[in-house]
Amino acid sequence: MKEQASTRGRRPGAPDTRAEILASARSLFAARGFPGTSVRAVAAGAGVDPALVHHYFGTKDDLFVAALELPVDPRERLAGVIALGPDGAGERMLRVFLSVWDDPEVQPGLVALARSLVSDDSASLVRDGFIPVVVGPVLASLVRDRPEVRVPLVASQIIGLVVARYVVALPPMAAMPAEDVVARVGPTLQRYLTGDLP
Amino acid sequence: MKEQASTRGRRPGAPDTRAEILASARSLFAARGFPGTSVRAVAAGAGVDPALVHHYFGTKDDLFVAALELPVDPRERLAGVIALGPDGAGERMLRVFLSVWDDPEVQPGLVALARSLVSDDSASLVRDGFIPVVVGPVLASLVRDRPEVRVPLVASQIIGLVVARYVVALPPMAAMPAEDVVARVGPTLQRYLTGDLP
Repeated sequence: MKEQASTRGRRPGAPDTRAEILASARSLFAARGFPGTSVRAVAAGAGVDPALVHHYFGTKDDLFVAALELPVDPRERLAGVIALGPDGAGERMLRVFLSVWDDPEVQPGLVALARSLVSDDSASLVRDGFIPVVVGPVLASLVRDRPEVRVPLVASQIIGLVVARYVVALPPMAAMPAEDVVARVGPTLQRYLTGDLP
Repeated sequence: MKEQASTRGRRPGAPDTRAEILASARSLFAARGFPGTSVRAVAAGAGVDPALVHHYFGTKDDLFVAALELPVDPRERLAGVIALGPDGAGERMLRVFLSVWDDPEVQPGLVALARSLVSDDSASLVRDGFIPVVVGPVLASLVRDRPEVRVPLVASQIIGLVVARYVVALPPMAAMPAEDVVARVGPTLQRYLTGDLP
Protein backbone atom coordinates (compact mmCIF):
# COMPACT_ATOMS: atom_id res chain seq x y z
CA MET A 1 0.00 0.00 0.00
CA LYS A 2 2.75 2.40 0.87
CA GLU A 3 4.42 1.78 -2.49
CA GLN A 4 1.17 2.36 -4.27
CA ALA A 5 0.44 5.60 -2.43
CA SER A 6 3.89 6.79 -3.35
CA THR A 7 3.47 6.15 -7.08
CA ARG A 8 0.12 7.91 -6.94
CA GLY A 9 1.82 10.86 -5.18
CA ARG A 10 2.48 14.23 -6.74
CA ARG A 11 6.20 14.17 -7.45
CA PRO A 12 6.52 11.64 -10.28
CA GLY A 13 3.50 12.57 -12.40
CA ALA A 14 4.60 14.98 -15.13
CA PRO A 15 1.27 16.84 -15.49
CA ASP A 16 1.18 17.42 -11.74
CA THR A 17 4.73 18.70 -11.72
CA ARG A 18 3.92 21.20 -14.43
CA ALA A 19 0.84 22.36 -12.52
CA GLU A 20 2.82 22.64 -9.30
CA ILE A 21 5.49 24.75 -10.95
CA LEU A 22 2.77 27.04 -12.33
CA ALA A 23 1.05 27.30 -8.95
CA SER A 24 4.37 28.12 -7.29
CA ALA A 25 5.12 30.73 -9.98
CA ARG A 26 1.74 32.39 -9.66
CA SER A 27 1.96 32.60 -5.91
CA LEU A 28 5.52 33.96 -5.93
CA PHE A 29 4.96 36.46 -8.74
CA ALA A 30 1.87 37.73 -6.88
CA ALA A 31 3.66 37.93 -3.52
CA ARG A 32 7.08 39.23 -4.59
CA GLY A 33 6.46 40.74 -8.00
CA PHE A 34 8.33 39.89 -11.16
CA PRO A 35 11.81 41.22 -10.27
CA GLY A 36 11.66 39.62 -6.80
CA THR A 37 10.87 36.15 -8.12
CA SER A 38 13.64 33.79 -9.29
CA VAL A 39 13.28 30.57 -11.27
CA ARG A 40 15.19 28.94 -8.41
CA ALA A 41 12.56 30.09 -5.87
CA VAL A 42 9.72 28.91 -8.12
CA ALA A 43 11.43 25.52 -8.44
CA ALA A 44 11.94 25.30 -4.67
CA GLY A 45 8.29 26.17 -4.11
CA ALA A 46 7.28 23.29 -6.36
CA GLY A 47 9.90 20.94 -4.93
CA VAL A 48 11.64 20.42 -8.25
CA ASP A 49 14.99 21.19 -9.86
CA PRO A 50 15.26 24.61 -11.60
CA ALA A 51 16.26 22.77 -14.77
CA LEU A 52 12.79 21.25 -14.84
CA VAL A 53 11.24 24.73 -14.74
CA HIS A 54 13.29 25.70 -17.78
CA HIS A 55 12.41 22.42 -19.43
CA TYR A 56 8.69 22.99 -19.07
CA PHE A 57 8.48 26.75 -19.45
CA GLY A 58 11.63 28.17 -21.02
CA THR A 59 12.88 31.48 -19.65
CA LYS A 60 11.63 33.37 -16.62
CA ASP A 61 9.79 35.69 -19.03
CA ASP A 62 8.05 32.69 -20.61
CA LEU A 63 7.19 31.33 -17.18
CA PHE A 64 5.66 34.69 -16.28
CA VAL A 65 3.51 34.71 -19.42
CA ALA A 66 2.43 31.13 -18.64
CA ALA A 67 1.59 32.10 -15.05
CA LEU A 68 -0.65 34.91 -16.31
CA GLU A 69 -2.59 32.23 -18.20
CA LEU A 70 -3.11 34.51 -21.16
CA PRO A 71 -5.24 32.83 -23.80
CA VAL A 72 -2.70 34.01 -26.37
CA ASP A 73 0.91 35.10 -26.12
CA PRO A 74 0.91 38.78 -27.09
CA ARG A 75 4.52 38.46 -28.18
CA GLU A 76 3.53 35.91 -30.83
CA ARG A 77 0.48 37.80 -32.02
CA LEU A 78 2.39 41.05 -32.35
CA ALA A 79 5.29 39.48 -34.22
CA GLY A 80 3.50 40.13 -37.51
CA VAL A 81 2.92 43.77 -36.57
CA ILE A 82 6.59 44.23 -35.80
CA ALA A 83 7.69 42.50 -38.99
CA LEU A 84 5.97 45.17 -41.10
CA GLY A 85 7.75 48.03 -39.33
CA PRO A 86 6.56 51.22 -37.68
CA ASP A 87 4.51 52.66 -40.57
CA GLY A 88 0.87 51.97 -39.88
CA ALA A 89 1.80 49.93 -36.81
CA GLY A 90 -0.75 51.77 -34.65
CA GLU A 91 -3.70 50.54 -36.68
CA ARG A 92 -2.26 47.06 -37.28
CA MET A 93 -1.50 46.60 -33.59
CA LEU A 94 -5.01 47.68 -32.67
CA ARG A 95 -6.57 45.33 -35.20
CA VAL A 96 -4.67 42.36 -33.75
CA PHE A 97 -5.51 43.49 -30.24
CA LEU A 98 -9.24 43.81 -30.93
CA SER A 99 -9.38 40.46 -32.75
CA VAL A 100 -8.21 38.80 -29.55
CA TRP A 101 -10.27 40.83 -27.05
CA ASP A 102 -13.45 40.81 -29.14
CA ASP A 103 -13.37 37.01 -29.33
CA PRO A 104 -16.23 35.89 -27.04
CA GLU A 105 -14.31 32.73 -26.17
CA VAL A 106 -11.39 34.53 -24.59
CA GLN A 107 -12.91 37.86 -23.54
CA PRO A 108 -14.29 36.79 -20.13
CA GLY A 109 -10.93 35.41 -19.05
CA LEU A 110 -9.13 38.55 -20.21
CA VAL A 111 -11.60 40.81 -18.42
CA ALA A 112 -11.13 38.87 -15.19
CA LEU A 113 -7.36 39.15 -15.63
CA ALA A 114 -7.55 42.89 -16.32
CA ARG A 115 -9.67 43.41 -13.21
CA SER A 116 -7.24 41.50 -11.02
CA LEU A 117 -4.27 43.37 -12.50
CA VAL A 118 -5.81 46.72 -11.55
CA SER A 119 -6.47 45.51 -8.02
CA ASP A 120 -4.23 46.55 -5.21
CA ASP A 121 -2.23 43.36 -4.92
CA SER A 122 -1.45 42.94 -8.56
CA ALA A 123 -0.43 46.42 -9.63
CA SER A 124 3.22 45.49 -9.34
CA LEU A 125 2.68 42.54 -11.69
CA VAL A 126 1.63 44.99 -14.37
CA ARG A 127 4.20 47.60 -13.50
CA ASP A 128 7.21 45.36 -13.01
CA GLY A 129 6.15 42.34 -15.03
CA PHE A 130 3.56 42.60 -17.73
CA ILE A 131 4.55 45.95 -19.21
CA PRO A 132 8.35 45.55 -19.16
CA VAL A 133 8.38 41.82 -19.96
CA VAL A 134 5.50 41.31 -22.35
CA VAL A 135 4.52 44.66 -23.81
CA GLY A 136 7.64 46.78 -23.54
CA PRO A 137 9.97 44.80 -25.82
CA VAL A 138 7.31 44.53 -28.52
CA LEU A 139 6.55 48.24 -28.48
CA ALA A 140 10.18 49.25 -28.10
CA SER A 141 10.90 47.73 -31.50
CA LEU A 142 8.23 49.95 -33.06
CA VAL A 143 8.88 53.34 -31.50
CA ARG A 144 10.86 55.98 -33.30
CA ASP A 145 12.89 57.03 -30.27
CA ARG A 146 12.60 57.53 -26.49
CA PRO A 147 10.77 54.29 -25.64
CA GLU A 148 10.55 55.49 -22.00
CA VAL A 149 8.21 58.26 -23.21
CA ARG A 150 6.37 56.46 -26.01
CA VAL A 151 5.73 53.01 -24.50
CA PRO A 152 3.79 54.28 -21.46
CA LEU A 153 1.73 56.59 -23.68
CA VAL A 154 0.76 53.66 -25.92
CA ALA A 155 0.08 51.58 -22.82
CA SER A 156 -2.16 54.31 -21.38
CA GLN A 157 -4.42 54.40 -24.45
CA ILE A 158 -4.60 50.60 -24.71
CA ILE A 159 -5.32 50.18 -21.01
CA GLY A 160 -8.04 52.82 -21.26
CA LEU A 161 -9.53 51.05 -24.26
CA VAL A 162 -9.57 47.75 -22.34
CA VAL A 163 -11.30 49.33 -19.36
CA ALA A 164 -13.80 51.37 -21.39
CA ARG A 165 -14.67 48.70 -23.97
CA TYR A 166 -14.47 45.49 -21.94
CA VAL A 167 -14.19 46.00 -18.17
CA VAL A 168 -16.62 48.84 -17.55
CA ALA A 169 -18.14 48.31 -21.02
CA LEU A 170 -19.36 51.84 -21.71
CA PRO A 171 -22.19 51.12 -24.14
CA PRO A 172 -21.06 53.23 -27.10
CA MET A 173 -17.47 51.99 -26.74
CA ALA A 174 -18.44 48.37 -26.21
CA ALA A 175 -20.69 48.44 -29.27
CA MET A 176 -18.28 50.35 -31.55
CA PRO A 177 -17.37 48.22 -34.58
CA ALA A 178 -13.76 47.09 -34.41
CA GLU A 179 -12.84 48.84 -37.65
CA ASP A 180 -14.20 52.13 -36.28
CA VAL A 181 -12.06 51.73 -33.16
CA VAL A 182 -9.06 51.04 -35.39
CA ALA A 183 -9.74 54.14 -37.49
CA ARG A 184 -10.40 56.39 -34.49
CA VAL A 185 -7.82 55.18 -31.97
CA GLY A 186 -5.15 53.87 -34.36
CA PRO A 187 -3.85 57.38 -35.17
CA THR A 188 -3.41 58.02 -31.44
CA LEU A 189 -1.21 54.94 -31.10
CA GLN A 190 0.67 55.85 -34.27
CA ARG A 191 1.41 59.33 -32.97
CA TYR A 192 2.62 57.89 -29.66
CA LEU A 193 4.84 55.39 -31.51
CA THR A 194 6.35 57.58 -34.21
CA GLY A 195 4.82 61.07 -34.18
CA ASP A 196 6.44 64.32 -33.16
CA LEU A 197 6.17 64.44 -29.39
CA PRO A 198 7.46 67.20 -27.15
CA MET B 1 -34.05 56.74 30.46
CA LYS B 2 -36.32 55.90 27.56
CA GLU B 3 -36.81 59.58 26.75
CA GLN B 4 -33.10 60.19 26.90
CA ALA B 5 -32.36 57.23 24.66
CA SER B 6 -34.88 58.56 22.20
CA THR B 7 -33.38 62.05 22.01
CA ARG B 8 -29.96 60.45 21.57
CA GLY B 9 -31.41 58.31 18.78
CA ARG B 10 -30.69 58.71 15.11
CA ARG B 11 -33.74 60.42 13.71
CA PRO B 12 -33.60 63.95 15.14
CA GLY B 13 -29.87 64.67 14.81
CA ALA B 14 -29.24 66.56 11.56
CA PRO B 15 -25.64 65.40 11.02
CA ASP B 16 -26.75 61.79 11.53
CA THR B 17 -29.62 62.21 9.11
CA ARG B 18 -27.27 63.51 6.46
CA ALA B 19 -24.88 60.60 7.04
CA GLU B 20 -27.74 58.11 6.96
CA ILE B 21 -29.00 59.47 3.67
CA LEU B 22 -25.48 59.19 2.24
CA ALA B 23 -25.10 55.63 3.53
CA SER B 24 -28.45 54.67 2.06
CA ALA B 25 -27.51 56.29 -1.26
CA ARG B 26 -24.14 54.53 -1.43
CA SER B 27 -25.64 51.16 -0.68
CA LEU B 28 -28.48 51.56 -3.19
CA PHE B 29 -26.33 53.00 -5.98
CA ALA B 30 -23.92 50.09 -5.51
CA ALA B 31 -26.66 47.48 -5.40
CA ARG B 32 -29.03 48.80 -8.09
CA GLY B 33 -26.87 51.12 -10.16
CA PHE B 34 -27.63 54.74 -10.93
CA PRO B 35 -30.72 54.32 -13.11
CA GLY B 36 -32.25 51.78 -10.70
CA THR B 37 -31.97 54.05 -7.68
CA SER B 38 -34.60 56.67 -6.90
CA VAL B 39 -34.41 59.54 -4.42
CA ARG B 40 -37.55 58.07 -2.88
CA ALA B 41 -35.82 54.72 -2.27
CA VAL B 42 -32.76 56.45 -0.80
CA ALA B 43 -35.05 58.43 1.51
CA ALA B 44 -36.93 55.27 2.52
CA GLY B 45 -33.62 53.51 3.26
CA ALA B 46 -32.65 56.37 5.58
CA GLY B 47 -36.11 56.61 7.10
CA VAL B 48 -36.61 60.23 6.03
CA ASP B 49 -38.82 62.20 3.70
CA PRO B 50 -37.60 62.55 0.09
CA ALA B 51 -37.80 66.33 0.51
CA LEU B 52 -35.04 66.09 3.09
CA VAL B 53 -32.81 64.31 0.59
CA HIS B 54 -33.30 67.17 -1.85
CA HIS B 55 -32.75 69.67 0.95
CA TYR B 56 -29.40 68.21 1.88
CA PHE B 57 -28.11 67.08 -1.50
CA GLY B 58 -30.02 68.75 -4.33
CA THR B 59 -30.80 66.60 -7.37
CA LYS B 60 -30.27 62.87 -7.76
CA ASP B 61 -27.17 63.70 -9.83
CA ASP B 62 -25.81 65.80 -6.96
CA LEU B 63 -26.61 63.02 -4.49
CA PHE B 64 -24.71 60.59 -6.70
CA VAL B 65 -21.65 62.84 -6.80
CA ALA B 66 -21.85 63.20 -3.01
CA ALA B 67 -22.14 59.42 -2.61
CA LEU B 68 -18.97 58.95 -4.64
CA GLU B 69 -17.21 61.13 -2.06
CA LEU B 70 -15.10 62.81 -4.71
CA PRO B 71 -12.67 65.27 -3.16
CA VAL B 72 -13.73 67.75 -5.83
CA ASP B 73 -16.79 68.03 -8.03
CA PRO B 74 -15.52 67.51 -11.58
CA ARG B 75 -18.45 69.52 -12.90
CA GLU B 76 -17.26 72.59 -10.98
CA ARG B 77 -13.60 72.18 -11.91
CA LEU B 78 -14.39 71.74 -15.57
CA ALA B 79 -16.71 74.74 -15.74
CA GLY B 80 -13.77 76.98 -16.59
CA VAL B 81 -12.66 74.64 -19.35
CA ILE B 82 -16.11 74.69 -20.87
CA ALA B 83 -16.40 78.46 -20.60
CA LEU B 84 -13.42 78.91 -22.93
CA GLY B 85 -14.95 76.70 -25.63
CA PRO B 86 -13.66 73.73 -27.61
CA ASP B 87 -10.42 75.27 -28.96
CA GLY B 88 -7.57 73.98 -26.84
CA ALA B 89 -10.02 72.25 -24.51
CA GLY B 90 -8.03 68.99 -24.65
CA GLU B 91 -4.97 70.53 -23.05
CA ARG B 92 -6.95 72.72 -20.63
CA MET B 93 -9.06 69.78 -19.48
CA LEU B 94 -5.97 67.68 -18.94
CA ARG B 95 -4.24 70.43 -16.97
CA VAL B 96 -7.21 70.72 -14.59
CA PHE B 97 -7.44 66.96 -14.35
CA LEU B 98 -3.76 66.53 -13.48
CA SER B 99 -3.82 69.37 -10.96
CA VAL B 100 -6.44 67.41 -9.01
CA TRP B 101 -4.97 63.92 -9.40
CA ASP B 102 -1.36 64.97 -8.81
CA ASP B 103 -2.33 66.58 -5.50
CA PRO B 104 -0.86 64.26 -2.85
CA GLU B 105 -3.70 65.14 -0.49
CA VAL B 106 -6.44 63.78 -2.70
CA GLN B 107 -4.61 61.23 -4.85
CA PRO B 108 -4.87 58.24 -2.47
CA GLY B 109 -8.62 58.62 -2.14
CA LEU B 110 -9.03 58.95 -5.90
CA VAL B 111 -6.86 55.89 -6.55
CA ALA B 112 -8.94 53.84 -4.10
CA LEU B 113 -12.09 55.07 -5.81
CA ALA B 114 -10.73 54.25 -9.27
CA ARG B 115 -9.83 50.74 -8.13
CA SER B 116 -13.25 50.11 -6.69
CA LEU B 117 -14.93 51.47 -9.81
CA VAL B 118 -13.05 48.98 -12.00
CA SER B 119 -14.01 46.11 -9.71
CA ASP B 120 -16.78 43.78 -10.67
CA ASP B 121 -19.48 45.22 -8.47
CA SER B 122 -19.00 48.83 -9.38
CA ALA B 123 -18.65 48.72 -13.15
CA SER B 124 -22.27 49.74 -13.54
CA LEU B 125 -21.68 52.80 -11.35
CA VAL B 126 -19.15 54.01 -13.91
CA ARG B 127 -21.13 52.90 -16.93
CA ASP B 128 -24.57 54.06 -15.88
CA GLY B 129 -23.66 56.74 -13.37
CA PHE B 130 -20.29 58.40 -13.38
CA ILE B 131 -19.81 58.70 -17.14
CA PRO B 132 -23.34 59.78 -18.13
CA VAL B 133 -24.01 61.92 -15.04
CA VAL B 134 -20.69 63.51 -14.20
CA VAL B 135 -18.46 63.30 -17.25
CA GLY B 136 -20.84 63.06 -20.18
CA PRO B 137 -22.61 66.42 -19.88
CA VAL B 138 -19.31 68.26 -19.41
CA LEU B 139 -17.71 66.62 -22.43
CA ALA B 140 -20.85 66.83 -24.54
CA SER B 141 -20.67 70.61 -24.36
CA LEU B 142 -17.13 70.50 -25.81
CA VAL B 143 -17.42 68.00 -28.64
CA ARG B 144 -17.91 69.12 -32.22
CA ASP B 145 -20.54 66.53 -33.02
CA ARG B 146 -21.50 62.91 -32.35
CA PRO B 147 -21.00 62.89 -28.58
CA GLU B 148 -21.81 59.16 -28.58
CA VAL B 149 -18.58 58.60 -30.53
CA ARG B 150 -16.36 61.30 -29.03
CA VAL B 151 -17.19 61.09 -25.32
CA PRO B 152 -16.23 57.41 -24.91
CA LEU B 153 -13.00 58.01 -26.83
CA VAL B 154 -12.07 60.86 -24.49
CA ALA B 155 -13.08 58.69 -21.54
CA SER B 156 -10.90 55.83 -22.77
CA GLN B 157 -7.75 57.97 -22.88
CA ILE B 158 -8.45 59.58 -19.52
CA ILE B 159 -9.24 56.24 -17.86
CA GLY B 160 -6.02 54.80 -19.30
CA LEU B 161 -4.06 57.77 -18.01
CA VAL B 162 -5.53 57.27 -14.54
CA VAL B 163 -4.66 53.58 -14.50
CA ALA B 164 -1.17 54.01 -15.99
CA ARG B 165 -0.14 57.08 -13.99
CA TYR B 166 -1.85 56.53 -10.64
CA VAL B 167 -3.33 53.06 -10.17
CA VAL B 168 -0.65 50.83 -11.65
CA ALA B 169 1.84 53.74 -11.60
CA LEU B 170 4.04 52.73 -14.51
CA PRO B 171 7.27 54.46 -13.50
CA PRO B 172 7.85 56.58 -16.63
CA MET B 173 4.20 57.63 -16.68
CA ALA B 174 3.97 58.27 -12.95
CA ALA B 175 7.12 60.40 -13.07
CA MET B 176 6.26 62.34 -16.24
CA PRO B 177 5.98 66.07 -15.49
CA ALA B 178 2.39 67.23 -15.75
CA GLU B 179 3.16 69.70 -18.52
CA ASP B 180 4.73 66.90 -20.59
CA VAL B 181 1.58 64.82 -20.14
CA VAL B 182 -0.48 67.82 -21.22
CA ALA B 183 1.65 68.37 -24.32
CA ARG B 184 1.74 64.68 -25.26
CA VAL B 185 -1.80 63.52 -24.42
CA GLY B 186 -3.66 66.83 -24.87
CA PRO B 187 -3.66 66.57 -28.69
CA THR B 188 -5.22 63.09 -28.39
CA LEU B 189 -8.11 64.52 -26.35
CA GLN B 190 -8.43 67.48 -28.69
CA ARG B 191 -8.68 65.18 -31.71
CA TYR B 192 -11.32 63.08 -29.95
CA LEU B 193 -13.27 66.24 -29.03
CA THR B 194 -13.12 68.20 -32.26
CA GLY B 195 -10.87 66.50 -34.82
CA ASP B 196 -11.88 64.76 -38.02
CA LEU B 197 -12.95 61.28 -37.01
CA PRO B 198 -14.24 58.57 -39.31
